[in-house]
Amino acid sequence: MAAVRALVGSRFAAASAFASLSPGGRTPSQRAAIHLSAPQPAAKVALVLSGCGVYDGTEIHEASAILVHLSRGGAEVQIFAPDVPQMHVIDHTKGQPSESESRNVLTESARIARGTITDLAKLNAANHDAAIFPGGFGAAKNLLCCIAPVLAAKVLRGVEVTVGHEQEEGGKWPYAGTAEAIKALGAKHFVKEVAEAHVDQKNKVVTTPAFMCHTALHHIHDGIGAMVQKVLELTGK
Amino acid sequence: MAAVRALVGSRFAAASAFASLSPGGRTPSQRAAIHLSAPQPAAKVALVLSGCGVYDGTEIHEASAILVHLSRGGAEVQIFAPDVPQMHVIDHTKGQPSESESRNVLTESARIARGTITDLAKLNAANHDAAIFPGGFGAAKNLLCCIAPVLAAKVLRGVEVTVGHEQEEGGKWPYAGTAEAIKALGAKHFVKEVAEAHVDQKNKVVTTPAFMCHTALHHIHDGIGAMVQKVLELTGK
Repeated sequence: MAAVRALVGSRFAAASAFASLSPGGRTPSQRAAIHLSAPQPAAKVALVLSGCGVYDGTEIHEASAILVHLSRGGAEVQIFAPDVPQMHVIDHTKGQPSESESRNVLTESARIARGTITDLAKLNAANHDAAIFPGGFGAAKNLLCCIAPVLAAKVLRGVEVTVGHEQEEGGKWPYAGTAEAIKALGAKHFVKEVAEAHVDQKNKVVTTPAFMCHTALHHIHDGIGAMVQKVLELTGK
Repeated sequence: MAAVRALVGSRFAAASAFASLSPGGRTPSQRAAIHLSAPQPAAKVALVLSGCGVYDGTEIHEASAILVHLSRGGAEVQIFAPDVPQMHVIDHTKGQPSESESRNVLTESARIARGTITDLAKLNAANHDAAIFPGGFGAAKNLLCCIAPVLAAKVLRGVEVTVGHEQEEGGKWPYAGTAEAIKALGAKHFVKEVAEAHVDQKNKVVTTPAFMCHTALHHIHDGIGAMVQKVLELTGK
């Protein structure tokens, strides 16, 4: 699951390996042309990664989908990751830790960011309209994604989130029990389909099931698109 | 750039971490309902990865886009990578090799494949309708992507490919000189936009500029979508 916390903020100077405001994106000038009013600044979004690869880092396809949809939405994106050692390095062919290896979360995250990445310690919420925390289980802190809405439930009393369905339904929702853990923390769980996102208007948190559902990848991609769209709507830009 | 060679083949037993034929994809039964004829088997596509991350492996966003579009097209996908050491490990925060590290191409590719991956040595073209080779410069052989249409030009006499435009145009096409290298090898270069794909019907090769163009990520995603669509059309499934 991917989740997001929208933050009130102002402009920042984003340097990105992705040319996010080229023709075809929702650029300020294009929006001005549509609305016949003064150009509106693009939403400034911080994307917080935690490595490269599900199980020991950020789930790659969630991260890529977020960047594609932010690009389509005309957002200005700055990518962050914590400059800390990974808790472990998973051999993805075996699903087990590779004991002899050590990696850095920031350096691994730079693979997804194509090099242009900033130490998470420099993230200032006041500089961003929103922050997106894609998922994976992992070593880094500050995740709010995949199974991590449970963390949101711990941090934000009574927060509204979704991890999809609440029953396994023959393996389609293998982590359905997570919903009960969320409720046990005093949060509110909303049943959603994989291509949907839930918006907590009060807390400005948007969540979508993503890989909590065992389904075709394009459905997960579309759900993340719904999440990104809701996040950009929350920014008001 | 992502490129593809369509191969004549038959069914294979694909095991994939991605549930590629769940509701919403172009499943055989759905297509049967549309065409009022016997169910048509899904296209069997081999995706060949070469590590995880542009510069020393497969470009992550190209690979993810290919998988999203193959999923949407209802293809059955089996992911391969060569079980060989990487030529080098790039520190993506510096753009330079990290001398002290060594990694395996198959193991790193498994990060994109979410674990379910097969040694490239076991790839049998007869089992697949098409093979897609996404890009990045790298250690692995058998690439036909990004700058690798140059390799296609070497291997297939007179092959038709695109790497986008043939002039830099103020930095929008920073690798435009590649087109001249392709022509020098006796191949034919076709000027295409980033969201387009070129089909060589004779050689059954499909190419799209992808990251050869400095543009917003969603345009690259859409170009890869065009490429995947043309590939699936070539399979006739």
